[in-house]
Amino acid sequence: MQHSNKRGFASDNNAGVHPDILKGIIDSNEGHVVGYGDDHYTRQARKLFRDHLGEDTEVWFVFTGTAANTLGLSGITRSWNSVIAAHTAHIQQDECGAPEKFAGCKVLTVDTPDGKLKPDMLAKHIHGFGFEHHSQPRVISITQTTEMGTVYTAGEIRELADYAHEKGMLLHMDGARIANAAAYLSLPVREFTTDAGVDLLSFGGTKNGMMYGEAVCFLKPGLSPDFKYIRKQGMQLASKMRYISAQFIAYFRNDLWLRNASRANAMARILSEKIREIPGITITQQVQSNGVFAVIPHDVAEVLMESYFFYSWDELTSEYRLMTSWDTTPEDIDDFVRLLGKVMAKRV
Amino acid sequence: MQHSNKRGFASDNNAGVHPDILKGIIDSNEGHVVGYGDDHYTRQARKLFRDHLGEDTEVWFVFTGTAANTLGLSGITRSWNSVIAAHTAHIQQDECGAPEKFAGCKVLTVDTPDGKLKPDMLAKHIHGFGFEHHSQPRVISITQTTEMGTVYTAGEIRELADYAHEKGMLLHMDGARIANAAAYLSLPVREFTTDAGVDLLSFGGTKNGMMYGEAVCFLKPGLSPDFKYIRKQGMQLASKMRYISAQFIAYFRNDLWLRNASRANAMARILSEKIREIPGITITQQVQSNGVFAVIPHDVAEVLMESYFFYSWDELTSEYRLMTSWDTTPEDIDDFVRLLGKVMAKRV
Amino acid sequence: MQHSNKRGFASDNNAGVHPDILKGIIDSNEGHVVGYGDDHYTRQARKLFRDHLGEDTEVWFVFTGTAANTLGLSGITRSWNSVIAAHTAHIQQDECGAPEKFAGCKVLTVDTPDGKLKPDMLAKHIHGFGFEHHSQPRVISITQTTEMGTVYTAGEIRELADYAHEKGMLLHMDGARIANAAAYLSLPVREFTTDAGVDLLSFGGTKNGMMYGEAVCFLKPGLSPDFKYIRKQGMQLASKMRYISAQFIAYFRNDLWLRNASRANAMARILSEKIREIPGITITQQVQSNGVFAVIPHDVAEVLMESYFFYSWDELTSEYRLMTSWDTTPEDIDDFVRLLGKVMAKRV
Amino acid sequence: MQHSNKRGFASDNNAGVHPDILKGIIDSNEGHVVGYGDDHYTRQARKLFRDHLGEDTEVWFVFTGTAANTLGLSGITRSWNSVIAAHTAHIQQDECGAPEKFAGCKVLTVDTPDGKLKPDMLAKHIHGFGFEHHSQPRVISITQTTEMGTVYTAGEIRELADYAHEKGMLLHMDGARIANAAAYLSLPVREFTTDAGVDLLSFGGTKNGMMYGEAVCFLKPGLSPDFKYIRKQGMQLASKMRYISAQFIAYFRNDLWLRNASRANAMARILSEKIREIPGITITQQVQSNGVFAVIPHDVAEVLMESYFFYSWDELTSEYRLMTSWDTTPEDIDDFVRLLGKVMAKRV
Repeated sequence: MQHSNKRGFASDNNAGVHPDILKGIIDSNEGHVVGYGDDHYTRQARKLFRDHLGEDTEVWFVFTGTAANTLGLSGITRSWNSVIAAHTAHIQQDECGAPEKFAGCKVLTVDTPDGKLKPDMLAKHIHGFGFEHHSQPRVISITQTTEMGTVYTAGEIRELADYAHEKGMLLHMDGARIANAAAYLSLPVREFTTDAGVDLLSFGGTKNGMMYGEAVCFLKPGLSPDFKYIRKQGMQLASKMRYISAQFIAYFRNDLWLRNASRANAMARILSEKIREIPGITITQQVQSNGVFAVIPHDVAEVLMESYFFYSWDELTSEYRLMTSWDTTPEDIDDFVRLLGKVMAKRV
Repeated sequence: MQHSNKRGFASDNNAGVHPDILKGIIDSNEGHVVGYGDDHYTRQARKLFRDHLGEDTEVWFVFTGTAANTLGLSGITRSWNSVIAAHTAHIQQDECGAPEKFAGCKVLTVDTPDGKLKPDMLAKHIHGFGFEHHSQPRVISITQTTEMGTVYTAGEIRELADYAHEKGMLLHMDGARIANAAAYLSLPVREFTTDAGVDLLSFGGTKNGMMYGEAVCFLKPGLSPDFKYIRKQGMQLASKMRYISAQFIAYFRNDLWLRNASRANAMARILSEKIREIPGITITQQVQSNGVFAVIPHDVAEVLMESYFFYSWDELTSEYRLMTSWDTTPEDIDDFVRLLGKVMAKRV
Repeated sequence: MQHSNKRGFASDNNAGVHPDILKGIIDSNEGHVVGYGDDHYTRQARKLFRDHLGEDTEVWFVFTGTAANTLGLSGITRSWNSVIAAHTAHIQQDECGAPEKFAGCKVLTVDTPDGKLKPDMLAKHIHGFGFEHHSQPRVISITQTTEMGTVYTAGEIRELADYAHEKGMLLHMDGARIANAAAYLSLPVREFTTDAGVDLLSFGGTKNGMMYGEAVCFLKPGLSPDFKYIRKQGMQLASKMRYISAQFIAYFRNDLWLRNASRANAMARILSEKIREIPGITITQQVQSNGVFAVIPHDVAEVLMESYFFYSWDELTSEYRLMTSWDTTPEDIDDFVRLLGKVMAKRV
Repeated sequence: MQHSNKRGFASDNNAGVHPDILKGIIDSNEGHVVGYGDDHYTRQARKLFRDHLGEDTEVWFVFTGTAANTLGLSGITRSWNSVIAAHTAHIQQDECGAPEKFAGCKVLTVDTPDGKLKPDMLAKHIHGFGFEHHSQPRVISITQTTEMGTVYTAGEIRELADYAHEKGMLLHMDGARIANAAAYLSLPVREFTTDAGVDLLSFGGTKNGMMYGEAVCFLKPGLSPDFKYIRKQGMQLASKMRYISAQFIAYFRNDLWLRNASRANAMARILSEKIREIPGITITQQVQSNGVFAVIPHDVAEVLMESYFFYSWDELTSEYRLMTSWDTTPEDIDDFVRLLGKVMAKRV
């Protein structure tokens, strides 16, 4: 099976590159342009970000989501600060300590039922201001859409931003899957980021049909005046920047980013609806984007994994994560659900 | 001129992607494969590295040359070590302190006439072993080809490796332009790396026709058993790894990497020969790869820069760097030399 | 009041130096000895540690408790590791992020009712071994006596050590107040450290009558072979080491360390008993060492603070911390309790 | 010999504590004072620093000279900066990479004949401002007195400060032996620090008769507004701060610091004069403070070391360093010189 390149539900990272993105790359592959971002593709791509997020947005392209989060946070913290996030946050669970290593900060977490922070969960960590023994709380970090597939409303984000600013803190949004949230909320992205008070945004592309490339977006002027050095010292300055920029240009053209995300969201909704009908399977989270969390008996999951690779989310509760992507088809879902149904049926 | 994508001599980074590389990417863009490197493209690409560098080679792909150097060095040092390099080395001049920030090490330098270290230059920094007050010398780092366009022979490398090993140290090679050295030396790459005693190699692709992608190669087993964590925490683990791997597969197919480098080297040689004939211009370094260093009067350079962007190397001596690349044509050279001749002639 | 040097209950750090310690310093102040620890005082002091903790103990003196914890943990971790501790732990709350900054590690926490970890609390953080995205769990860190004044039994420590070792992890004990635990448990220190399976011990002296000086103790051989560089690079190598060593020699002579701690413990017990009798005051933690945690009405605390400085522990619950020290007298307690009683009485 | 505490010439660190300093400690050892520096001794000591260095001076006590340099530099740099120093500087040779590890900066060096920087040596490192690939030059760091025992004049310092400020940089002085310079120059310390344009001063006490304690002095307001967090996270916040403060109070009383340094300087002068008369010994540096650098035949040095421990400075040139201290006596010198003369005489 290894060489089959079969579509599955392991991760939106496992999908390939959307043809329009690839075409954008190919079209930009002509002659010489100045390296490291001083080129017309990059200028155009950065302008598109400002169009979407507001004129004051400062945009910096990097390679990975971990880098976008880690370097962005480095830009607005010092090593004696703390960043508060959900226990499930990518910066806590899936970056191998990059924020601690590179920014030197503490990451403090709270448990949540659905991956979403609420102001009243945070008091435990927000104190000790001015007390030199204690890491100084500086950033609240949320993920949109969350690692649990749930989506913050613009109002919920506004509330967190107000809370943060009241405390002299900033709000960071890890938007590795921000397109899925925009599609779900059916709102201009600006309304639940810049206009909702977000200060720093990691804007993802890779999980939604790009090859590589994420953007660190400071949504207010002057937040990180030295960020160019942080990016370079952070090993994330692309020499041939035009190929990231060309991808983002294609990504925004004709709302490709939203179309990709809508498709993935729709497929997850359908997947969850069909799975839900199979007796013995429980869906554990609201399906608001492209992730479906389901309790599946271990032995059943094992049989499925002979045909499909996907991730165990929680060994103890036998919870698994199924991700759809921009290229998931209804047939893919039918095939998967049919197999799941068959294995479950055999079991009883 | 900004939008013209005109070929020039600023940097091999300014060139685009070779069509065969692009084709490699396009061909791999099919269906789903597991992310983060557990895919058949990556397995194949890593095998190609072992074919070239030896069976014991451990290969890890990253995005940038700065990352390859910084993370590779992190893999074989602890923060109390020092790394010794030429004053002109990329790790000293052009990485904005990434090695110090990420590895925590000291970088110690010596002045060289041509960018090349020799054992007898190093004594100044190699002492204090076991003395806790002093950073412990651990790595000698050379660049092949050097930042001055010169090339170490296999024998010179062997001598440095022996010297390092005798002291209980390791030899690192920054091979951002290793293809140009292989083409110049006309040797299998293994002969001036693994077989010459090099321990750690940063193997570059981006400057020689790839879009992005470099390889950290540990040439002996067991040098950095935890490197997977270093790469991830270093923000350099590509989710869609297959697109780096597909590039390297194309890069090695039919010796594309050598053909690209040979072309660039040949163009530099021709460029240097033609420039040398113009009265008033001095070539300052041997032309052994794709860089030409020349003293050009400031006012002349300024006029040239209206048509071509290139870098000043040394303000004080009026030295400039001209780089050829895989796509430089004889016509490009003729055009440039004609202009240079004209401006120089007018001057007198 | 500022200049009065009046004894109070703010912290055992506020007490001075025991006369026998001072005498030890004075007696060692003669002539020259080699700096940085290569002197006979330091050899003698290190031997005393081995007498108490076992022959294999490797002892390194540093200046502060934060340094003992941070550098000790640096000695047994790499930056991609995680350290698991109670939410109340000093390394989490009171070191301004020093472990993250210096070791680069993640600190993960669990909530506890009394500052004490138990194996069944830890599962949440102990997983993902070998998975490069996830910080690798490496150390369980406990504080003895805890920040809440409670004490682990030798059996409880053994259980945690076994749990850690089973997982391939290590057990660290922050023993800033280890003497108070030894006095409470009435056990040789070895029985609840080395013999109970502890790997790394931060052994404190400053809070129990010393002027400055803590010891990083690796209780098994080979745990941190390069620690001398970690200490020096960590800015904690004392040039005139003899004055730390002389203090530790005096500290262990005639069990001064135990006598000091016993006195402080006894005073806390008496203080808690007397306070407990005052209507309206609640003692919230078991008093097993030299700390008393009590809910005192805010307005009452404010009046008390005109005469005594002490710390608020939890603003929300109106909980305060009262610490006794080696020099607390029964009269000090009577005075304080009398005042507290008077203010409480007036209130009703 | 090990237990003899015999006075020698190895290092001013090997000397003990001056009786007046010890008396200062003893006198402050009464009752309780608030920890971590909020006490009347510390307020008084900081005032004394402002009296000597100017009203705007911000003073922070730490334990070691390495910490004073490393944390002070952390206060005025970001990780992408570089610090320029002499090759012989303590921050380069004797801090095991603490500045790189903790501040993340590059340390760049120049060779000097006598340990003293001059503006015209620095051009090599001072360029690339605003260029994100290059570490941004931020600090020039000098040592007063230098590691070679030489002393900068106030004018020389002024010149370096002007040069630094012109470039938008700052001037740091490592004053581990600043008292020896003040004694040699016979100037108020302010005249060759604050008034000469120095921005950051590491003011040492340990090498000149104190037990431990150094001061980070920001000589202009606002240079490092968050330094309290840097010191705490840097593991250098003393809980029982009063004992550092009491030492500094005694240190400045009746000019003890100058008297100690003058004595040490005088002894070095006498030592050098007497040694100079011995045929076959060469003094290699001007004797302006308490260090004497001399070429002594290896075999002679070896015989001497049976009676006196002292350090080899340069193995290749057979250069040795002899240090006097506040407690060196004329008899110590006579004894040493007599022995040296005898061994040299026997040799010929």
